[in-house]
Amino acid sequence: MTDKEISRAVIKRLPRYFRYLGELKDAGVEKISSQELSQIMHVTASQIRQDLNNFGGFGQQGYGYNVKHLYDEIGRILGLDREHNLIIIGGGNLGSALAGYGNFANRGFIMKGVFDVSPSLAGQYIRNIPILPMSALPEFIEKNNIDIAVIAIPKTQAVAVADTLVKCGIKAIWNFSHVDLEVPDDVVVESVHLSESLMRLSYNLSRVGFGEEPDND
Amino acid sequence: MTDKEISRAVIKRLPRYFRYLGELKDAGVEKISSQELSQIMHVTASQIRQDLNNFGGFGQQGYGYNVKHLYDEIGRILGLDREHNLIIIGGGNLGSALAGYGNFANRGFIMKGVFDVSPSLAGQYIRNIPILPMSALPEFIEKNNIDIAVIAIPKTQAVAVADTLVKCGIKAIWNFSHVDLEVPDDVVVESVHLSESLMRLSYNLSRVGFGEEPDND
Repeated sequence: MTDKEISRAVIKRLPRYFRYLGELKDAGVEKISSQELSQIMHVTASQIRQDLNNFGGFGQQGYGYNVKHLYDEIGRILGLDREHNLIIIGGGNLGSALAGYGNFANRGFIMKGVFDVSPSLAGQYIRNIPILPMSALPEFIEKNNIDIAVIAIPKTQAVAVADTLVKCGIKAIWNFSHVDLEVPDDVVVESVHLSESLMRLSYNLSRVGFGEEPDND
Repeated sequence: MTDKEISRAVIKRLPRYFRYLGELKDAGVEKISSQELSQIMHVTASQIRQDLNNFGGFGQQGYGYNVKHLYDEIGRILGLDREHNLIIIGGGNLGSALAGYGNFANRGFIMKGVFDVSPSLAGQYIRNIPILPMSALPEFIEKNNIDIAVIAIPKTQAVAVADTLVKCGIKAIWNFSHVDLEVPDDVVVESVHLSESLMRLSYNLSRVGFGEEPDND
């Protein structure tokens, strides 16, 4: 079975499987049954079997899943079997927070540079990542094989910056600006709209007062 | 029609409608047709009519939607018609970034305090928000009517902190730690798992190379 036959709903759940399998692997667990995984992840065992059957024959009757094998396979499907070079646009608090996350590097997401419009930041470092002026962007992207750009600037500038990134050959944008970016078909965008997440929390909070079941994430 | 009859799929889309309607309102637009909104939001006009019909009778044939009325109504449903008092657990980069977001305050989410285990931070401020020691948490929550707590600390400490927050009466947790929190039924959790978002981007990036349509957000 090829990767492309896997449904989007399953793909959306893969990072969570990957996280739990990684924790089990780190704890030295070699195999696990769908029932055990079900208890840890609070998902039905039948959902787990259905999801993981997409990867063919890993679960063996009476044996369970080989944790490391399944972890590696899901990582491969998620594109984590190779390194990605990233840049961050915006050296403010959020850009700095993202630049400083050690966990991203552990997963093969290597932060190479932070770009900021403020001349006063240029030449400084966040951890060991250099802050550079926007004028250095095109050359830096080409020389450092950058494939992912993170947008962590106010929405008023985000659209123009996204256009520039696409012109420089960027194929993937992780967008934290509160705006929907329009990009060519061969460019992928994943947006993290924090305000909208907070509004969903607010909505669910207003529901629990009425004795309704919250839609927990 | 009461709020509880609105489906979860529609609720998930409400924050995006709220954002676009807010921008139209700020631009002085008083009414808009489903066709016009469709073009701006890149959603079909029929989807828009279906979604917004949940709020009854706002769209008038040949007139369109009253922007301000619809904006206010969606805001009310999202629980944005009243203020929420928030605390942030964790005064690191991410906690500081969240404490510094002016946009949250504009929506009625008021950051009241940041709590950190590091004694060296206590007594400092992020913008005008005090950083306090964890020991001050229970009293602060009660005195300041806190209803939302933001968890922006490493996953190893997040579970214990969530337990403490629930004991202190917190009913809503905005969780940035990469762990699934288990809370009582009357507590709502909205998680922002940044690593998982980045993995979805990586997955989609690995697909475009094969000429497949990216699953853009």
